[in-house]
Amino acid sequence: MAESVSERDTSSPTVVVLGLGLIGGSLAAALRGNGFCRRCIGWGHREASLQRGVELGIIDSYTLDLEAAVDAADILVIATPTLVAAQMLERILPRLQDRAQPPVITDVASVKGNLQRTAEAVWGGMPPRLVLGHPIAGSERSGVDAADAGLFLNHRVILTPVPGNDASAVELVRAMWASTGAEVIDMGVAEHDRVLAATSHLPHVLAYALVDALAQSAASADIFRFAAGGFRDFTRIASSDPVMWRDIAIANRPALLQAIDLFSDHLLELRAAIDQQQSDALLETFSRAKGARDAFAAQLAARGQRPA
Amino acid sequence: MAESVSERDTSSPTVVVLGLGLIGGSLAAALRGNGFCRRCIGWGHREASLQRGVELGIIDSYTLDLEAAVDAADILVIATPTLVAAQMLERILPRLQDRAQPPVITDVASVKGNLQRTAEAVWGGMPPRLVLGHPIAGSERSGVDAADAGLFLNHRVILTPVPGNDASAVELVRAMWASTGAEVIDMGVAEHDRVLAATSHLPHVLAYALVDALAQSAASADIFRFAAGGFRDFTRIASSDPVMWRDIAIANRPALLQAIDLFSDHLLELRAAIDQQQSDALLETFSRAKGARDAFAAQLAARGQRPA
Repeated sequence: MAESVSERDTSSPTVVVLGLGLIGGSLAAALRGNGFCRRCIGWGHREASLQRGVELGIIDSYTLDLEAAVDAADILVIATPTLVAAQMLERILPRLQDRAQPPVITDVASVKGNLQRTAEAVWGGMPPRLVLGHPIAGSERSGVDAADAGLFLNHRVILTPVPGNDASAVELVRAMWASTGAEVIDMGVAEHDRVLAATSHLPHVLAYALVDALAQSAASADIFRFAAGGFRDFTRIASSDPVMWRDIAIANRPALLQAIDLFSDHLLELRAAIDQQQSDALLETFSRAKGARDAFAAQLAARGQRPA
Repeated sequence: MAESVSERDTSSPTVVVLGLGLIGGSLAAALRGNGFCRRCIGWGHREASLQRGVELGIIDSYTLDLEAAVDAADILVIATPTLVAAQMLERILPRLQDRAQPPVITDVASVKGNLQRTAEAVWGGMPPRLVLGHPIAGSERSGVDAADAGLFLNHRVILTPVPGNDASAVELVRAMWASTGAEVIDMGVAEHDRVLAATSHLPHVLAYALVDALAQSAASADIFRFAAGGFRDFTRIASSDPVMWRDIAIANRPALLQAIDLFSDHLLELRAAIDQQQSDALLETFSRAKGARDAFAAQLAARGQRPA
């Protein structure tokens, strides 16, 4: 392939997906399926995955040549792991800085602040056509074979545009995600990273810490032997990909540390209430938490996701 | 009813359930359904629940008179909330101490140490016919209308017999639970409370602490708005009954405090690794936790419970 596009086509763009895993593959499948893109091209290191993407009808074609991939794109979607996404920006942005109309670039990573800092350092400010994004969707499966054109349906995609962004670039990325059936929402970079630290990154750290603490304790065989359904649900996220979560923990370090500290303070208060048998304080905290959690579960059900 | 049984019938016993909620009702339904009991009698404070139990065919009859209930029983099952179970022992045991052959007494509470201490204090040693037990089963529903004769099928029931127990009493309680399709396992009282603190009581405290911390934070509306499926699973147990969990936290205080401290130490280590960007240490911990959790999920699936 590697044909060069001189005029940007935004009504029927060529979408190039860098990294054809679960998220990149699902996005490609959705955009090819709904006709949003003229062509959908995959780039990656592992040719077998890319070939599989063609076989599955997820992409039209692929290339192993990053320069060719960038040249072909109207929209470039960085769908690599979190820390690799920062490296991709370091490789891609310098070669676009002297172009009259570089492609619109977006990404799918779980942390936005580190990518903004990387882009600003490379570009000398936020590149106008770089619109960072994060689809709140996933699966316990991974890889191109798990790609699902319906993965984003009724799920939220957070975009974190900045004042310096080209309005047309923001609108194109918004239209791309809207075409997949997602609800697209704008948010500030710092706010995104705080909210995700609280609702996703912190729970993962807590689940990993709990399972590891129990696994290393003397009674671990008995402990896991007698654990039941509540423990299974509570620890499900500790079965997530360790590399992905190592990357996220490092990429979102400042917000994650704050979230850990907020949680630790609360746990310490609860510990004191248990130690001092403060029956009323315990009941009040547990009741308030149940109220908040029930309300959240009802919200989630109302958004069309499976009930709690 | 209130007819008195002079000879203990252990081949087809009269079972009296004190407290006809989810667990008591499900046990009664199972024992009536499988023919284990000659009669199944309910006792409680709320006559409407007991009448409903008769209507549903869960019990043969009921009484509001505790003395009559105790007199009628070959097996007395204390199925009240955790802290009430200790009060029931205080009310029941003194009137049985001068009887030649008191009924076999067992319970279903989530904590065993507090009941053992209460019984020993009242009786002056562990009553030979008191066999403490704990079915590891539950549901998000509660009350007699949620009773399910199949609730214990393929689930574990932990008995905590002591050297002073009548062997025949232990065997009768074991046979009762075995008849429901449960796998009955013996364990020491202290070990039971440690294992349950780790796998059940601690996770509940962590889930309550997390949800309450987030609900009280400034960004709580956004936080719950953007939380997704992983958060739903992780916090499901924070929707549990606050009164029940307040009781359990207080009843199992010593073991729960130890479990909280073990967890807090691990979380502090992980926090330091994130703060210092110790990439290898994070990956090692997350990988070890994933391995333990995957192995646990496989065990649970092999026990015939729904997969992870």
